[in-house]
Amino acid sequence: MGTATEAWVIGVDLGGTKVEVAQLDTAGHVGQRLRRRTDVGDGSASVEAEIVTAVRDLQEITGYPPIGVGVGVAGQIDPFEGAVRFAPNLDWHDIPLQADLSRALGLPVLVTNDVRAATWGEWLHGAGQGYDDLVCLFVGTGIGGGVVSGGQMLAGRSNTAGELGHMTVDLYGPTCHCGNRGCLEALAGGWAIARQAEESMAADPSAGAFLLKMAHGQPKAVTAELVAEAAHAGDPLARRLVDKVAQALIAGAVGLVNAFNPCCLILGGGVIEGLPELVQRIDQGVRERALAAASASLQVLPARLRGDAGVVGAAALVLRSLTQERGVA
Amino acid sequence: MGTATEAWVIGVDLGGTKVEVAQLDTAGHVGQRLRRRTDVGDGSASVEAEIVTAVRDLQEITGYPPIGVGVGVAGQIDPFEGAVRFAPNLDWHDIPLQADLSRALGLPVLVTNDVRAATWGEWLHGAGQGYDDLVCLFVGTGIGGGVVSGGQMLAGRSNTAGELGHMTVDLYGPTCHCGNRGCLEALAGGWAIARQAEESMAADPSAGAFLLKMAHGQPKAVTAELVAEAAHAGDPLARRLVDKVAQALIAGAVGLVNAFNPCCLILGGGVIEGLPELVQRIDQGVRERALAAASASLQVLPARLRGDAGVVGAAALVLRSLTQERGVA
Repeated sequence: MGTATEAWVIGVDLGGTKVEVAQLDTAGHVGQRLRRRTDVGDGSASVEAEIVTAVRDLQEITGYPPIGVGVGVAGQIDPFEGAVRFAPNLDWHDIPLQADLSRALGLPVLVTNDVRAATWGEWLHGAGQGYDDLVCLFVGTGIGGGVVSGGQMLAGRSNTAGELGHMTVDLYGPTCHCGNRGCLEALAGGWAIARQAEESMAADPSAGAFLLKMAHGQPKAVTAELVAEAAHAGDPLARRLVDKVAQALIAGAVGLVNAFNPCCLILGGGVIEGLPELVQRIDQGVRERALAAASASLQVLPARLRGDAGVVGAAALVLRSLTQERGVA
Repeated sequence: MGTATEAWVIGVDLGGTKVEVAQLDTAGHVGQRLRRRTDVGDGSASVEAEIVTAVRDLQEITGYPPIGVGVGVAGQIDPFEGAVRFAPNLDWHDIPLQADLSRALGLPVLVTNDVRAATWGEWLHGAGQGYDDLVCLFVGTGIGGGVVSGGQMLAGRSNTAGELGHMTVDLYGPTCHCGNRGCLEALAGGWAIARQAEESMAADPSAGAFLLKMAHGQPKAVTAELVAEAAHAGDPLARRLVDKVAQALIAGAVGLVNAFNPCCLILGGGVIEGLPELVQRIDQGVRERALAAASASLQVLPARLRGDAGVVGAAALVLRSLTQERGVA
């Protein structure tokens, strides 16, 4: 964390199952970090108190306070007040998180969406560093993303731009958790991979035998991670499932490249980490299928910060807002 | 065109079959206009000479020169030099149109893509006036569009952002002219509607009898326009074809709304003009299927400038670059 008088910031990544509070220097390097479990049952006051305690604990280690706190939350965030409009995994509605934390800590606080924060992280300190036009696609249990175009992070009218997992890629395809059909997430998100595995195993038990064994006989216990492992072990059903995921991600990536004409398409999230070969397959697929002019100067890259993207991005964002007076999150 | 000393600009819309050169006042109103046919056989020098002559003819009417010339070209444009990198319908490669016209006319000239120009037109003087976050989707023979986000027109890395017709909406769907499968254009562009009509008529001649009669017995003569007319006349096959077009456009629109979170989705182009009821259907479909947060403050609107969007936008763009020194096209 550098010298005793160096400025530092806090990055917070707040999800439905855990909150991570990390110390970062101004170059985006993570120092000490604290993790706490969160639960839908916890009220917002209890989670806010956890964050405040963690920030104070980190401050005690350093001996002097951070210059600001950036928070990424899995939810819809008001871009002006940093209030959490709706966070389904926490069951929060209209919680003035930014104002609450700022008052409790006596520090500048900036709250943004967690995927947006991760995009800021990859842009300012990860695979997208130095580029002005990039798309980040995070393929985890769900799929989300962020877009930087002409050096600006896209926010949209009500700050929800970047819901790239809910672009339709299969018009008459399976239903998505969002209610639409054929969303990219409904074909390639972790939950959808598990669903497809379960359906395929039910339809053809002999083909599903290997996966079933890996899941200790419980079809419901098959996860995207298990499918990835089975595919790497050579299981034909798992490989077919992964092929379908790759086709869906290629279709989504082609649309993103044609629509945004980025110079980098950055791929991250648990599904990509479990199936890192997807990066090369998507790269090749995009080159074959996107418009030549849109993909000529494109790089398809794996995300670099992995699980740290959220805290790094949230911290970088508050730092940026303090140093540049540009608070658009 | 206002008083004799009022500043005016020229807007040029250059396509594969015609070039239109129009006189506009600074409020975006079209005055006199001249149209010339263009042909792939015409070399660039001949088309450039036509434009120069038309500008001089309009100048003669006004009695004094315009302050600048904006040109929209159906092709890929270098954003810095205004050169036409590639215009397939004109068979142009690397034509320094901006420099050529500027030298010949002794005036500031700004060249941009024609669909981008139309988006500027709808943004600055059409249905999107006053908004900072909008998506224009022009559904003609092909499908193109433009996106304004946070008050900035998206250009992308190599100035091709906005190829919204080449977002995949039907992963395993029909091939597109671009080589990809299931592009929005391959399902809902004018050429694709004609192709689907022809295929449906071949597969079921009795269902296709009405369309065949309208096309004077020539299946190849069935156009998207004819399908629209037949649908309005109640022909069941044509109505099924239009339903499929509506489903594809809804899927595409849902993806655009989720990705960009615009406050306006503006729909224009010949297919929309021929089937104006699509605007309301897409509006309803998006409200049913897009994420609630992304579509809460959305308006779905018909384009307002119709065929004038290109000249209005090109003129507005050069005016803007002259008055604001912001030449990003």
